[in-house]
Order: sequence, then C-alpha cells, then structure tokens
Amino acid sequence: MKLDLLTVGTELLLGHTVDTNAAELGRALAAAGVEIDRHITVADRADAIRSAVAESLARAGAVLTTGGLGPTRDDVTKTAVAELLGRALVLDDALLHGLEERFRTLGRWPMPEVNRSQAMIPEGATVLPNPRGTAPGLWMEDERGRLVMMLPGVPREMRGLLVEEVLPRLVARQQRAGGAPAVVLSRTVRTTGIPESALAERLAGVEEEIAPLTLAYLPSVDGVDLRITAWSLPREDAERRLADAAERVRTRAGDHCYGEDGADLAAVVLDAVRRRRGRLGVAESCTGGLLGERLTAIPGASDVFVGGVVAYANGVKTDLLGVAPEIVERHGAVSEEAVRLMAAGAQRVFNAYCALAVTGIAGPTGGTAEKPVGTVWLAAAAGEHVRALKRIFPGDREEIRRRGAQAALDLLRRLLGAA
Amino acid sequence: MKLDLLTVGTELLLGHTVDTNAAELGRALAAAGVEIDRHITVADRADAIRSAVAESLARAGAVLTTGGLGPTRDDVTKTAVAELLGRALVLDDALLHGLEERFRTLGRWPMPEVNRSQAMIPEGATVLPNPRGTAPGLWMEDERGRLVMMLPGVPREMRGLLVEEVLPRLVARQQRAGGAPAVVLSRTVRTTGIPESALAERLAGVEEEIAPLTLAYLPSVDGVDLRITAWSLPREDAERRLADAAERVRTRAGDHCYGEDGADLAAVVLDAVRRRRGRLGVAESCTGGLLGERLTAIPGASDVFVGGVVAYANGVKTDLLGVAPEIVERHGAVSEEAVRLMAAGAQRVFNAYCALAVTGIAGPTGGTAEKPVGTVWLAAAAGEHVRALKRIFPGDREEIRRRGAQAALDLLRRLLGAA
Repeated sequence: MKLDLLTVGTELLLGHTVDTNAAELGRALAAAGVEIDRHITVADRADAIRSAVAESLARAGAVLTTGGLGPTRDDVTKTAVAELLGRALVLDDALLHGLEERFRTLGRWPMPEVNRSQAMIPEGATVLPNPRGTAPGLWMEDERGRLVMMLPGVPREMRGLLVEEVLPRLVARQQRAGGAPAVVLSRTVRTTGIPESALAERLAGVEEEIAPLTLAYLPSVDGVDLRITAWSLPREDAERRLADAAERVRTRAGDHCYGEDGADLAAVVLDAVRRRRGRLGVAESCTGGLLGERLTAIPGASDVFVGGVVAYANGVKTDLLGVAPEIVERHGAVSEEAVRLMAAGAQRVFNAYCALAVTGIAGPTGGTAEKPVGTVWLAAAAGEHVRALKRIFPGDREEIRRRGAQAALDLLRRLLGAA
Repeated sequence: MKLDLLTVGTELLLGHTVDTNAAELGRALAAAGVEIDRHITVADRADAIRSAVAESLARAGAVLTTGGLGPTRDDVTKTAVAELLGRALVLDDALLHGLEERFRTLGRWPMPEVNRSQAMIPEGATVLPNPRGTAPGLWMEDERGRLVMMLPGVPREMRGLLVEEVLPRLVARQQRAGGAPAVVLSRTVRTTGIPESALAERLAGVEEEIAPLTLAYLPSVDGVDLRITAWSLPREDAERRLADAAERVRTRAGDHCYGEDGADLAAVVLDAVRRRRGRLGVAESCTGGLLGERLTAIPGASDVFVGGVVAYANGVKTDLLGVAPEIVERHGAVSEEAVRLMAAGAQRVFNAYCALAVTGIAGPTGGTAEKPVGTVWLAAAAGEHVRALKRIFPGDREEIRRRGAQAALDLLRRLLGAA
C-alpha cells in the first residue's frame, strides 16, 4: 500500500530541528510493505495541516502525521483533522484517567489543566496507547475507508507507537486486502576508488537486467553506494531478486566493491589484517588522527590495531618515524619518497606487519602549482610489499581529509586482496 | 516572500538518507526573510517531480528544488521541470567547457560521456555556477513571473550555491517588490561541562528577561547549546535584541561558555595555546586519533599542533610515551597515574609546552565493576601545571569517545583560563 507522510512543525521548516522521524518512518514502513508516496512538512497552523491532509487523502488515500499532538497552544493537528473529517472532539474517560495516574506517579499533582485537552479525541477514532508520553496516537478511517494515523513528534514516542501499534495494523490491513503484503526492500553495494561516471559506464545495461528492481547511485566522500530496491513485491520474491541483482552489480563493480549495506571499510581492513594474523600501525599527517579514529571506531579493533603517530610537524616525521630530513628537503613532506618512509616507520615503531601512511595538502592554504590543495600521497605496507599512490581530491579541508583516510584504507584492502 | 521547498530523492523517502538539506535551507532562507510554506519530498520519478512542482507553483508561486541534477539516469529533475514549463534542453557551451576543464585538472580524462548531459540546460534558464561539483544550479522564471530554482542535492554544493547565488537573488527580488524584509535571526551560546538541568537552574528567569525572543536548550555530546531566536522583527531591531540577550545568557552561563554560534572548542584551545606562544602535543588511547582529528580539522592548526601518539596497545604507552610498565600493572592503563604520565610523555616526545592525554574504556566490552564502560581519565598539561580528571560518560562507544575528546579539550581550556 501507499501513503503520504505529513510531518508537522514550524521548527522543521525553520531548520531548527532536523527531521529524523521522516527517515526512520521511511525505513520502517518500507520493510512492512508500505511505500511513502510523498512526504510533506507544514507549519503548526490548522489551515496548513487541514489542506495538506485533504490533498493527501485525495491522492494517496492514507496519511500518517507526526507532531502537533502536545498540550500547548501550537499543537493543532488533532483539531484540524477532526474538523476536516467532520468529527466532534469528545472526552475519553479512560485516557483522562491514565493521564491523571501518570502525573500522580511522577509526583506532578494536580495535573495541569492544559493536559486535559490530550484526553479529547475525535469521535470514532481509535486510541493508540502511548506509555512513553502524554499524547496518545490516533487511528481514524472515514466513511470511504480512507485512513488518517496521527503520532506524536517526539522521536522516542513516535517510534514506540509505530512499532507497537501502527505497523501491526498496517500489515493486517494489507493482508485483509489480499495476500501477504508486498514489501519495499533494498540492498546496497558499496564501492570506493572509482568515480560515479566511470562506475556508470561499467554498469551500463544492468538497470535493464535487474528491472523491475531499480538502481540508484549515491556518491559520498566514502565512495559510491549502489542501492538496489525492490518495490511492492512479495517478500520472498523481493529477496530472491535482490540477491540476484546484488550479485550482478557486484560482478560489474569488480574489485571496487568492498562490501554491502552497513559495511565499514575500516572493519573490512581490520578483518583482512586479522586473517593474516598481522597487526596494523598508522602514520598520518594531513588526516591528523582521522585514520586512527576510523579504525578504532570499530569495536574489537584492539587485537589488530596497535597505534598511530600523528606526524603533523615535519620534525615528528623525522624524529619519530625516521624519515630522513634530506628526503623532506629534497622531495617535500608530500611526496612518494616521504610517504613510503612513513609507512616503513610505522611498521618499525609499532612492530607491525601492516602499516598505512598519509601525507597531503588539505588546504585551504599550502597548495602550489605543482602540488595543489587536495594532493595526497598514500602508502600501504604488508611485510615487504608496499604500494604508494598519489590522488588529487576535490572538496574542502574536511572532505579532502575524509577522502584521504578512506583511500588509505582502500589501498591496504586492495594490497591484501580483501573482499 | 514565500516558497515551497521540494527535495528530490527516493533514498530520502526510504529513509536511507536523513534530509539535512531541508533544515539548512530553512535556516538560511528564514534569515533572508524568505518563508518556506511547505516542504515536499518526492521520489526520483519524473511524474512525481512534475506534479509536485506544478502544485507548488500554483500554490506558492515559487519553488526551490534540491537533488536529481547528477549525471546518472536516476537524475531527472531538470528534464521534468523543463517539460513542465515547455522548454527544450539545449547544450550550454560555456558549461561544457568548464566541465571538461574540471575533469582535465583532476586527471580524469577523457570526460565520461554521461557527464555531457550536465551541460544541457532548459532554454531561458540562468546557470548558477557550481565550482564545487559538476552539476550547476538553475534559475528559471515562467511567463507569469513564477520561479523555479534547482540546486544539486550534495550538501556542500547545495550550500555554496545557496549562499553565493540564490540568497542574493532572492533578497534583491524582495527589495524590488518593496521594503526590507522582516527576518528570523538566531544566536547560539555554546556551553560544555555542565548538565542541561544544572544550566537551566543558572538561567532561571532569563526567558522572561529576553522575551519576545525565545530560548531553546539543545544538548549534544559536545555540551548544551543555548539558541536564542528573534522572530519576524526588522533586522536592526532583531540584531540589537539578540546582542543584549546573548550577553545575559553568557553572563549566567559563566565559564561553562566557550563561544558562540559556530565556535569549535578545538579552535578555542588552539588560540589559547597560540596566545601563550606554546605548542601542543597529544597522547590518546580510547579516542584513537579523534583528539588529533578535532585539532587538525581547524585550518592553520599546524603552527600550534605538533603531533600525536595513538597509544592503543599498552606497549605503545610504555615504549613511545615512557609510562612505566609497573604503573600500568599496578593501577591499570585507565588510571590517574597513567594519564598523567601519558601527558608528560606527550610534552617530552613533541617538545611541547602543552599536552593532552586521554585513556578510557569506550566499550562495548572491557568494563569492570570498579571501572565501568564510559570511565575516562583525562589530563591537561601546560608547562609545570597539570590537571587530571575522571569522568564516567553515558552513551555508546562513539558517544563516549566524542565526549572524551571534548572533555579533554575543555580541561585544557579551563587550565589556560580561555574564554
């Protein structure tokens, strides 16, 4: 089934709050076979809510709202929807009793008068109990079977009501409408070290092969993710087709692919070093600690990762890592010679089989005609095997550093021949 | 003026991406006196984009889109809008030339054929140059003066085009329409090292003092930000009231305040060390490089920050930093004794007046009854002066590490008596 998502809140439009509810609802609904056709955000104004709900009901036949169910004056979702559907607001005794109990337990007695309004519900609405807060969810169908679901905007409360009350009802509704619910499922093939356009050339024609599944290119500083989505298919069919499509996409992407879905390149590299019973040390200049941070973000990194040297000043490169001062003088700190010696230094200092080194110019200043901002030298070492690589990354300081760390990890992955 | 915001992307509806662009656009447009009337998200489908743009033009008279301008087949925003407005797509020679230059400079030559499509623009559209990427922004008006602005979805590119191209044009358009716009402006006072509830006690009554401006508490792993907002006031009045309110809030927050708005604690600390003509080295265990990363993320860090040792394995703490093995054996690697010696080691190794050290248990495993997950020892040194501090942080591995790095920076800020 399809529905529209309506998130209500002036602070969302003003950008004081990032709408994380929308993303969370998108994932949860897709997995339950419900497709969000359109997502709309409007301010806390009754007229804006009323017209948006009316349009969504006309177009999609179902709408899920979040926000505007609280006790204060700017909470008008319930009133606006009741008015639109021609229902009066009536006091729900059980709700009122529950609210009063809640305030008594929390030692906030008497209950403020404003909270009484939260026990008023549109005639004919089903109350979805909210043990995490004072605003219950509401489920309403009009005479034509069109559906309005209202949830509070507080993420923790929204999530609880969604999982415990809304999803089971939506799945049951789809089953009544005939058969197991069709689902929207995705798989993501993660690639790095290849630009989006070059990847598109390798993948030419695959979109036709995997149809009706769709393929989306999602570039970021970590590389290009390829998201394959099966839309509105029975779960078993969707899973089978996704497995086949992911296999085709992986084959085309070749060794630029390092994993699927949530795979983290740092974890892939740690696993590869672990399989060789090796250990890993790093020496980093322009990334300033980011490479170590990426590796140690992975729980259990400590059996493989020994440590790192952040060799920001050139003196640290020479004193701690043993890069000869003449090398820095002759070739510069950002050079193939320097990065190879940094990697060898990390192997020695940390007594590690594997090492990574990064040195570059992250900007905004420090670039030259010969070595512009974005120039980064990378080296990966595994025992006697060493690979060095120069890249010129686009973007600002942060992006260059993040691309540098990712490219360093990728260099060692390829050297070790890991997935 | 009012406009609708249309963010395009199937991955947004599926919840694979959180829509941070919408919040950023909301803030920037509000500050320029432009109100977002409605925010709509649709999938990467030409029909969905076309009908949403048509509805927004009918309702609001202006729409700003993000996303769907890339080179691949799922990028259809430009085509859909051109079709809606009855414009043909034509090749823009200057754009094509710029694209080719860009690919040549980055050493990716020849340019892939797919990127050629990015030089095609709807007839009559104004090209908004995008130096940060391959997709230009587009500005189109129809014969009735209704406005469509198209920006890429990559946040960095969107942001640059917004600030450099879109906002100046929108402000000029409003001025032509008569009068300077009323604005929504905010200032943020940043605090750290004090819990939200304790801060609220210090600030009791300030909300009444600053009315009609509002105060919001925004807690994060970096501390609690205090956002003061002036709503729909003439710019001069808003700025004067904000300055007064920020002063009041800063005075109440005392030395827990480390800056305003975009202030980064790492930059504050670097400035403090720089003012003393000192240099800074770090020794970090559980943060694994994050502290170095925070410091080197600040442009120009290199005149103060020398380098760091990521002492993840205990052997690195003893060999590189000179922490006596007996100390680790007797007190543990997470102890006051160890963290003080790590800081002294960093001062010595990097020949630096100032040093920071962190050692802790970030989890998910490794905690004990005596030292639970979240236990972090911090030390800051400035010459002979050394301060050590134990904190027990809540949260998961990432949160504990981020809180640890921030608390370490804050310890040195307080030791140096910096704003």
